[in-house]
Amino acid sequence: MKTVHVSASRGYDVVIGGGLLETMGRTAAQLCPGRTACLVSDDTVFGLYGDRAKASLEAAGFTVCTWVFPHGEQAKCGERFLELVNFLAEHRLTRADLLVALGGGVTGDLTGFAAACYLRGVRVLQVPTSLLAMVDSSVGGKTAIDLPAGKNLCGAFYQPVGVLCDTDLLRTLPEDIFRDGCAEVIKYGVLGSRDLFDRLAAAHVRDQAEAIVADCVAMKRDVVEADEFDTGRRQFLNLGHTLGHAVEAGSDFRLSHGKSVAIGMAMIARAAASKGFCSPETRDELIALLTRYGLPTETDQTPEAILRTALGDKKRQGGSITLVVPAEIGRCVLHKIPVEELPRWIEAGI
Amino acid sequence: MKTVHVSASRGYDVVIGGGLLETMGRTAAQLCPGRTACLVSDDTVFGLYGDRAKASLEAAGFTVCTWVFPHGEQAKCGERFLELVNFLAEHRLTRADLLVALGGGVTGDLTGFAAACYLRGVRVLQVPTSLLAMVDSSVGGKTAIDLPAGKNLCGAFYQPVGVLCDTDLLRTLPEDIFRDGCAEVIKYGVLGSRDLFDRLAAAHVRDQAEAIVADCVAMKRDVVEADEFDTGRRQFLNLGHTLGHAVEAGSDFRLSHGKSVAIGMAMIARAAASKGFCSPETRDELIALLTRYGLPTETDQTPEAILRTALGDKKRQGGSITLVVPAEIGRCVLHKIPVEELPRWIEAGI
Repeated sequence: MKTVHVSASRGYDVVIGGGLLETMGRTAAQLCPGRTACLVSDDTVFGLYGDRAKASLEAAGFTVCTWVFPHGEQAKCGERFLELVNFLAEHRLTRADLLVALGGGVTGDLTGFAAACYLRGVRVLQVPTSLLAMVDSSVGGKTAIDLPAGKNLCGAFYQPVGVLCDTDLLRTLPEDIFRDGCAEVIKYGVLGSRDLFDRLAAAHVRDQAEAIVADCVAMKRDVVEADEFDTGRRQFLNLGHTLGHAVEAGSDFRLSHGKSVAIGMAMIARAAASKGFCSPETRDELIALLTRYGLPTETDQTPEAILRTALGDKKRQGGSITLVVPAEIGRCVLHKIPVEELPRWIEAGI
Repeated sequence: MKTVHVSASRGYDVVIGGGLLETMGRTAAQLCPGRTACLVSDDTVFGLYGDRAKASLEAAGFTVCTWVFPHGEQAKCGERFLELVNFLAEHRLTRADLLVALGGGVTGDLTGFAAACYLRGVRVLQVPTSLLAMVDSSVGGKTAIDLPAGKNLCGAFYQPVGVLCDTDLLRTLPEDIFRDGCAEVIKYGVLGSRDLFDRLAAAHVRDQAEAIVADCVAMKRDVVEADEFDTGRRQFLNLGHTLGHAVEAGSDFRLSHGKSVAIGMAMIARAAASKGFCSPETRDELIALLTRYGLPTETDQTPEAILRTALGDKKRQGGSITLVVPAEIGRCVLHKIPVEELPRWIEAGI
């Protein structure tokens, strides 16, 4: 078991290891004074782990109410958000009580945003069940819902009271969803650690989950602590995301987030190599590792279509856009360009 | 013109004086780097001031989009909130742009909450047009919407970039709505200033608006700075609100907030006098001033009905409730009681 402490506006521990679902109730009891917990999960995850999670909370003395929603990204919407806060109000949860987000990124984002807003803030314990959620959305305090106009357009910076990454839960994760998480894991290697990148090449994430998740969480923690409100260094985490988000949106979200980020990373590596930001070897190493993990590195979308979607990105500030560009494996740079230059980057990336 | 600086997690100025609507655009331009402003108002206020507000913003170089909603407390709901954030997304406001909340407490709360959530936080300028909003909801950073289960149950602590209290706007305020604000003004006198209380008795608020608003704002600022996240001293601001909210809800919100608070203050003063917390003279002075301002001090709701609604208060923590009790004009105390004692306080207050 490993623990990564996050010192944000409110400090909390991310605990990584096996068997954490069983001890979750006890952990929760230490993190909140109240004795009512609302367990939030989608129907798939609740079917797999709901009973064990509920039993663990009840054994620790909680009265548990459960809010289960149909799985899928479309649940991260305003209507579900209102349903959830209304559910909390109807069950009269107080500021002393707890929300438990058991699930992937959708569950964590939706529950985290509801926790941020209900009574202007109640405690939330994040229990991510996917690799992607463990290394990405459960750390950093970004919560959000999607709007018809775009993803994550409405949300809050809101820190959980704790994060439990039970690596045993990864065993039931479908291969394809595990793969999505691997794209984000590879991102951390490219961003900041040649050592991590090499370990990913030497053995599969599945066979070293605890160590890899802990390293990724620690790296994200370092970035988030330096930039809780996303005004500078946190932009590095967008490696592969500017073009990846565009590809994802361009597929009408039929392409998963992880696979879109893989394509986005491959594209930016190709463009970086062609413009001299990194060597062709760096580009090839990255694309080879993505391929080894069964991740796509190409898209059949046109440059024009990708450009159109990329220009709607909420990170765009007026007439410029900041790209995260690989310099070598383990080091990237921020590169701000006028939007007029974006088409050439996209063309060089395809 | 008077300026009160608020040092919250983000510092800002509350400016109080005449003619501020005319110079609003210039002020706004100094407070945000973007050049798009969304002006939010209800239909009544927009009819009175919308054109002047828009012209002021446009003269300062802003492109202005306007979102006008039907007036009334029922607008402070989840559905309107989603409509507003969707409107901002459709108009592609960026993090550099500005929301302007022109109106009373409903407009300020709804717009402030939307500003807190859209893109996880964009700038909002509060331009309160009612006395109540000037002295209460525009300062302190509490934003919220109502849920079917209760008022203000979903929201955020979110500071504006500035607050402009144009006291000229109070001239068009209907007498009855002005009166509501006077209840909150009197509250500040009872809470912390014998001098303010005496000045309210000596002349009508209407004839000394700038000085009175500035004093109330400064008092609220002192409380909020000491307790931004409402964990201690800010509870004092609830004077008259625990029972007042109950009376307000018990009337199905036909009774206004100000009049409900007036009744709540009178009730708690009567109970305080009967229990020896304050003298009968203090009670009588308070009730006399409320009456002089045309505010009600009695309710025909039954003690049982008031109790039922008061127990649903979100400030209740488990089995106890904290009352703000007058000790003398200018000084109150926090008094925590088990909920079982609440019926006796209500009976003594009627």
